[in-house]
Amino acid sequence: MLSKAIIKLVSSLEQKKYRLENNLFVAEGNKIVEEIIKTNFPIKFLITTSEWLSKNSLNKNIEIYEVEESEIKKISFQKTPQSVIAVCNIIENKLDISEIEQNLTLALDNVQDPGNVGTIIRIADWFGIKNILASYSTADIYNPKVIQATMGAFARMKVHYVLLPELLRKLKNDNNLIIYGTTLNGNNIYEQKLESKGIIVMGSEGNGISKPVLEILSEQLLIPNFSNNLQKSESLNVATATAIACSEFRRQQNY
Amino acid sequence: MLSKAIIKLVSSLEQKKYRLENNLFVAEGNKIVEEIIKTNFPIKFLITTSEWLSKNSLNKNIEIYEVEESEIKKISFQKTPQSVIAVCNIIENKLDISEIEQNLTLALDNVQDPGNVGTIIRIADWFGIKNILASYSTADIYNPKVIQATMGAFARMKVHYVLLPELLRKLKNDNNLIIYGTTLNGNNIYEQKLESKGIIVMGSEGNGISKPVLEILSEQLLIPNFSNNLQKSESLNVATATAIACSEFRRQQNY
Repeated sequence: MLSKAIIKLVSSLEQKKYRLENNLFVAEGNKIVEEIIKTNFPIKFLITTSEWLSKNSLNKNIEIYEVEESEIKKISFQKTPQSVIAVCNIIENKLDISEIEQNLTLALDNVQDPGNVGTIIRIADWFGIKNILASYSTADIYNPKVIQATMGAFARMKVHYVLLPELLRKLKNDNNLIIYGTTLNGNNIYEQKLESKGIIVMGSEGNGISKPVLEILSEQLLIPNFSNNLQKSESLNVATATAIACSEFRRQQNY
Repeated sequence: MLSKAIIKLVSSLEQKKYRLENNLFVAEGNKIVEEIIKTNFPIKFLITTSEWLSKNSLNKNIEIYEVEESEIKKISFQKTPQSVIAVCNIIENKLDISEIEQNLTLALDNVQDPGNVGTIIRIADWFGIKNILASYSTADIYNPKVIQATMGAFARMKVHYVLLPELLRKLKNDNNLIIYGTTLNGNNIYEQKLESKGIIVMGSEGNGISKPVLEILSEQLLIPNFSNNLQKSESLNVATATAIACSEFRRQQNY
């Protein structure tokens, strides 16, 4: 049986305020917890069943609360709870400018939907991106919906919440990085020469890239619409656009 | 005030059984209803507020139930209801083999998550794909979660539920179409010559392309993982993979 204190703590972590207060967040499910263990991400404790424990080897001194499935259902944030919940330590990622200088980095300008932010982290991880710069208005990476949508990729990604226009201006002026942004008025992404270093800015779901950031962009990139339907759609989902942009950057660098 | 019969009807349409029985489905929200109206998709009736009606011009004889916001909240399937709900007629799309023969078409082999199916329809629409072939085990396009995720693109897409292996075999043998599939053992998609006609098969979230379909593929395509992290992720979300594949097919045909 879980103590009332533990139940209260876990429940509170759905809210950012309590995540910051406790420096903890929640990650759930077999696949995600496996990824966390694989990457040695710091786990404060696990809540799981005897069955899960019998199938998974934990080689570290992880504190474990062994409970019945029914107890997990009660505290889970998910609609279809699985049999393991990890409560993890929030880790502070240091912004290493030399790493940003030498690699491709994503920047999220007010991407508010947690599912989109999580999906973008998973995409960035697939494409070998190590750092994501996020405006303070972007959804919190430790939001349970973000964590779940990353499918564990959050454990490999350094996400930095920053004053985005200020940092981008600095990276452009002091570090000579190209600041790319995907917009509806840009140059066709398939026809542009894309560099192996630089920042790719993705804007918010409703409004795209904000004006202060737009002014800093070195180059605007357009993902062309191939529909010849007169009533064609006007926008791509931001995570979809991120996938297409990352794919094209990596293709040009490697093939 | 909505009658009990209307409330009961709308509520029932969350379930496939009642959608088929009534030949109706539900689409919600400003953006999606605007797209439906724009594309002249058949609407049975609208449930909306006087405010919404004052802002939108409806040039057809659409039956309208004018209600208070609070009534919409009661019957909405959405967490954050907007001020318009459309109840639409299910339309039967005829499978036009000559159209399939001359274009790029997507095939979904047991893609079960409604959000993924909806996102894929939106992506396909963006990339000018007109038809989607779906195995019967793929999520129902008229599921409210699919409809919402398409952001209205469902109104421009012909989705056909079919015996997928049988149809693919026929398209390969009788119509000389190349059947592409994205797998983890394929040839690098960026290095393959991709044709402007053919079928791109996407597999299920957990298991990829099913064995019967795998055996029919003319060519397996791999979206390479660019991460050099030892604990890199093993899979892309199926909608993300669809976006990358469609982007690369269209790029090769046009640039």
